[in-house]
Amino acid sequence: MSTHQFAVNVTPKPGILDPQGRAVEGSLDHLGISGVSAVRVGRRVELTVDAADEAAARAVVERLAGELLANPLIEAYAIESIGGASSTTSSSPATAGERHA
Amino acid sequence: MSTHQFAVNVTPKPGILDPQGRAVEGSLDHLGISGVSAVRVGRRVELTVDAADEAAARAVVERLAGELLANPLIEAYAIESIGGASSTTSSSPATAGERHA
Repeated sequence: MSTHQFAVNVTPKPGILDPQGRAVEGSLDHLGISGVSAVRVGRRVELTVDAADEAAARAVVERLAGELLANPLIEAYAIESIGGASSTTSSSPATAGERHA
Repeated sequence: MSTHQFAVNVTPKPGILDPQGRAVEGSLDHLGISGVSAVRVGRRVELTVDAADEAAARAVVERLAGELLANPLIEAYAIESIGGASSTTSSSPATAGERHA
């Protein structure tokens, strides 16, 4: 078993209305900020997975993202490894995030 | 002038209550998913900035993140360059923050 940390970035699909993004754009004038456009507001979910290996951990995250974190009709998601991953091979040194079961 | 794409990842600071993260964790059993822990739910804001150069564009994003996108009392943010600069002047060198997918 090894411990892996992932982030799931969930963003509205192109063409899908994004009222939060419009709200940010509407606030730019008040802040005196110019040159900013195409603001899209999504979610970022960071999590830790204990699994046999990196592939198994990523499969868990894939399932979680597709079934719970993102609405596949209107949102796209990307999975990002953000650290804490450790190999199960004995030749690899332990990393700070590793936890043995 | 050149165009730069950034993402701002906003996450609850350590120790700050994260009810959305707890809600995700509470749903894992129903989905038959195990081994997932430490779920933190934040926001991801993607945007495009037109500015003189990469440094100027990043400064705009820093200001936007600190003043509008994140609440510095309870949230941390990280700025990520997600798109290549498309410069309007052919003589501009490639920017250091550029990331190729």
